[in-house]
Amino acid sequence: MAKVSIHPAIDNGVGPAAAANFTGGTLQCKCTDRKVAVSIKGQSNYNHACGCTKCWKPAGALFSIVAAVSRDNLAVTANQDKLKVVDPNAVIKRYACAACGVHMYGRIDNTGHPLYGFDFVHTELSPDKGWEPPGFAAFVSSIIESGADPANMGAVRARLEQLGLEPYDCLSPPLMDFIATQLAKASGKKRNAVPA
Amino acid sequence: MAKVSIHPAIDNGVGPAAAANFTGGTLQCKCTDRKVAVSIKGQSNYNHACGCTKCWKPAGALFSIVAAVSRDNLAVTANQDKLKVVDPNAVIKRYACAACGVHMYGRIDNTGHPLYGFDFVHTELSPDKGWEPPGFAAFVSSIIESGADPANMGAVRARLEQLGLEPYDCLSPPLMDFIATQLAKASGKKRNAVPA
Repeated sequence: MAKVSIHPAIDNGVGPAAAANFTGGTLQCKCTDRKVAVSIKGQSNYNHACGCTKCWKPAGALFSIVAAVSRDNLAVTANQDKLKVVDPNAVIKRYACAACGVHMYGRIDNTGHPLYGFDFVHTELSPDKGWEPPGFAAFVSSIIESGADPANMGAVRARLEQLGLEPYDCLSPPLMDFIATQLAKASGKKRNAVPA
Repeated sequence: MAKVSIHPAIDNGVGPAAAANFTGGTLQCKCTDRKVAVSIKGQSNYNHACGCTKCWKPAGALFSIVAAVSRDNLAVTANQDKLKVVDPNAVIKRYACAACGVHMYGRIDNTGHPLYGFDFVHTELSPDKGWEPPGFAAFVSSIIESGADPANMGAVRARLEQLGLEPYDCLSPPLMDFIATQLAKASGKKRNAVPA
């Protein structure tokens, strides 16, 4: 069986653990000139490999690597004029550099969305060391929608497990529970151990 | 830790394996008079515990138990006049007995939907023996949306695993891959091991 490439940044292992007391870093686009810069305060959360069709990934990668940060901890600090929203109708508006195409951050505008307050970023765009490594894989089956061979999915999931990235076809159980809890709160659902 | 009740039909185990050469059976609603009857040819597929908010479940159950059958193998054979669609706007139209409330079958009308061709049924409504037992658990986190306590989810997932029902927060990987493959075919996406 040929080795399955998940993403160039983790094909040889997900890398070192998050640095203790990491204070944040800067994401930069791939342009050689007038790089867009985005500053993040503190550590990211829920970093993971993502197979969805919308997240940015390097050419040839099966998966994106994407993490969440509080929107209050993110600021565009250089060349903001180069940013353009990829799809204004998407729930997550992805702000990409119009020149090199890299997505600098994704933001949810709908205050009623269960994940409102999180921005989504690719810490591989930062030269800073100490970011948390990815911890699981989400939307794995969705890589088929981008053209991956369905017959290869067993090998893909096996490789993700080998890398320590438990594969899920949606988000991870803690995140799915969090989303369901937010939805239950929004609908005013009473919490009982056994619903009527 | 109190024992977690998943569904009365499987709380003591999922039951015997599917009967070989099972030829099908009849589902009946819970009315004492003029029961709605639905005849199924052959065995069901993908039977599973489902935590979604829309599937029918007995009072007090955390999960529904639901399976797929080909729409060509399903026929309403008695008292069809009692059936009413629960939510005409849902993707799966659930035909329920207007008198007792039990869902007799769910059907997808959209021929472009990846699961078009499957009807969804609850084989616990059949007095016939030999149906396949449930094989996994889907939409587990969604029980929170019906009022289940988020703090209890670890116990719920542990109990599902104990019953041999691997818990997923969407459908199982084979079904998720199937859906993604249908979507890829519909979009005319070429299949490559590594998408560009």
